[in-house]
Amino acid sequence: MSLFEFQTAGKMVLGAHAAEQCAPYVNRLGDVRSALIVSQPSMQRSGFVDTLTQALAKEGIHSAMYCGVSPEPTERQLTDIYEQAVAGADYDVMIGVGGGSVLDATKLLAVMATSGMGVRDMLGTGLVRQKGIPTVLIPTTSGTGSEVTPNAIVTLPEEELKLAVVSPYLYPQLVLLDPVLTLTLPQPITAATGMDAFTHSLESYISNKGNPLSDMFALESIRLIAASLEEAYGNGTSLPARERMLLGSMYGGMALSCSGTAAVHALAYPLGGKFHITHGVANSMLLSHVMEFNFDAIVDRLSDVAAAMKLPEAQAGSAQRAAEAVIGKIRSWTADLHIPQNLREYGVREDDIEVLSVAAAKVTRLLNNNPKQVGMDDIRALYRKLLA
Amino acid sequence: MSLFEFQTAGKMVLGAHAAEQCAPYVNRLGDVRSALIVSQPSMQRSGFVDTLTQALAKEGIHSAMYCGVSPEPTERQLTDIYEQAVAGADYDVMIGVGGGSVLDATKLLAVMATSGMGVRDMLGTGLVRQKGIPTVLIPTTSGTGSEVTPNAIVTLPEEELKLAVVSPYLYPQLVLLDPVLTLTLPQPITAATGMDAFTHSLESYISNKGNPLSDMFALESIRLIAASLEEAYGNGTSLPARERMLLGSMYGGMALSCSGTAAVHALAYPLGGKFHITHGVANSMLLSHVMEFNFDAIVDRLSDVAAAMKLPEAQAGSAQRAAEAVIGKIRSWTADLHIPQNLREYGVREDDIEVLSVAAAKVTRLLNNNPKQVGMDDIRALYRKLLA
Repeated sequence: MSLFEFQTAGKMVLGAHAAEQCAPYVNRLGDVRSALIVSQPSMQRSGFVDTLTQALAKEGIHSAMYCGVSPEPTERQLTDIYEQAVAGADYDVMIGVGGGSVLDATKLLAVMATSGMGVRDMLGTGLVRQKGIPTVLIPTTSGTGSEVTPNAIVTLPEEELKLAVVSPYLYPQLVLLDPVLTLTLPQPITAATGMDAFTHSLESYISNKGNPLSDMFALESIRLIAASLEEAYGNGTSLPARERMLLGSMYGGMALSCSGTAAVHALAYPLGGKFHITHGVANSMLLSHVMEFNFDAIVDRLSDVAAAMKLPEAQAGSAQRAAEAVIGKIRSWTADLHIPQNLREYGVREDDIEVLSVAAAKVTRLLNNNPKQVGMDDIRALYRKLLA
Repeated sequence: MSLFEFQTAGKMVLGAHAAEQCAPYVNRLGDVRSALIVSQPSMQRSGFVDTLTQALAKEGIHSAMYCGVSPEPTERQLTDIYEQAVAGADYDVMIGVGGGSVLDATKLLAVMATSGMGVRDMLGTGLVRQKGIPTVLIPTTSGTGSEVTPNAIVTLPEEELKLAVVSPYLYPQLVLLDPVLTLTLPQPITAATGMDAFTHSLESYISNKGNPLSDMFALESIRLIAASLEEAYGNGTSLPARERMLLGSMYGGMALSCSGTAAVHALAYPLGGKFHITHGVANSMLLSHVMEFNFDAIVDRLSDVAAAMKLPEAQAGSAQRAAEAVIGKIRSWTADLHIPQNLREYGVREDDIEVLSVAAAKVTRLLNNNPKQVGMDDIRALYRKLLA
């Protein structure tokens, strides 16, 4: 085996109602007197941010809050949040409560607070110069895995791009995984984020940088998601299904941190940057098509995936048939969970394909992980499949 | 699910020849100018400590070495090492290269260096007062898992006891997992350490504190060890087998950090404390007997283990038969790998059983994790099985 690396969050605490019990864990991070809670409007409305504020107060931690993070935040929005909520203040810890956008924002604000770096200066791999103030991440969707990755995604509307900040300084010190917070997720978000988590794991499992550690996390994630996605969608208040989804999503993040994702993600980013298609939906739309493109290079791998998904075809003894069944299952999920399948719904036209393709081809950080080389013509053809 | 926690080493780097490439990784831990290498005579004789010293020097890191850690070190020995090699010096990092005893010693010396605490003051759970200087751990056996646990074991010869220091401050900042260093392990050490790693995972999987995360690591560890132990023993220079054993051993450490071990470990410590039976051998001797004692409470769990081990009986559809096959396989490993099975070989007599049993009954930290309650009579009966 060639060398591979693994790193993750400082500590995870997992279980129903973990989030509201977080204060003592936060306290143990050091001499914590003040916290900034970074969140999104839905978490304020649900009352959870207040619950958290009170729980922290009981441990002697004073908290301020910023609950206005918008989905897929732009560089400008992140800079504004920094100026409104962080600059000049002196928090001991930042606590992000929300979906991937909130978690990513929290990770970035924490390093901005200590380094004084602007968002733009950090875009890329390994450019963050120093560690941030400690972060605590509490995911409220089962998709992103951001709570255990070194990545944060930034939207650049002028350039119509989404780019990543990748740095080991973005790993949080503490993660709280509480399925109760996901019980009220609406169906479309359960679907898109669940498919996103599945995409993380499937792309990690077929990545050129895959290794025994990422394989373990990826297959366990696939196992959990395949056993729970339909139930979490159809019966959202099922705590066991929500638990498995949240764990599967975290494992997906652990897998991709170790192995990287590949062409699905590379093609998804331009759809977000130019057409504001959320990350989960963009990944879900592309997943079956990219897997079909990769098919002959990944038959054996997909056959392992079929076994983890407990597809009946995995028993038949033919790797080819088992692999085909995985793609079939992704297709039927896409239909059953009502994931959009046509880019026209988002205003994409034939004319846009060239710009999208040029942008996707630039995401070499991820395309290099793809098991088959992906040329410009391949990218164009893949986008065209979504314009049917 | 009730709350459970997971924490691990700061970063892992894995692969053949990882250890000799460690210097840049060490450098990235901070402003590292000086290192103390803590090791054992065999690693000095093999030339690896010199290789490491030279590699560090190329990165501008000056290193001193202490290569005299003895197996299962006593409180006195650890205090002596501290006084000889650590007190008064100002190392930026400590690098432990060796088996579990060396890794445990390194973890303790690092916290002694900053806290000024003596070994005895740290014995127990959560008593270490502050973080130590950063540690880098390079295991050279596939057994201990110490590189990813918060535990260090200390022998107290006056009390004829082995006790644990348990603290999150014992987690290392960096782990290098290099199977090349294990290619020359002698057969008896391959056997005892491999069975030790298997014991960690099996006990984690049946522990009352088991949870989805420890289960994943435990089953993956069991899968890797079952697929490789016999090959690693019979054909020690097989790099693939050694790789799987090293990974399986690390996963065992990750599992037990999350779930704790149980009665096998509780009964093994007195054998080490009083009769100097090494940890791996003591665990291996006890494993099948304790599993037999637990049997009716763990049939389903053992049946999962049988599937992970790919035992033919796992296919038969009877959980009972599959579970029995796990115990049968442990027995045949014990015979085939020439693990001692009789305490008389170590000078234990019938008269000693009472003292051993009283000592084991005190290890409530681990006995509480056991799926069946273990009373004094049970402990006596278990030891007696090894006096046949």
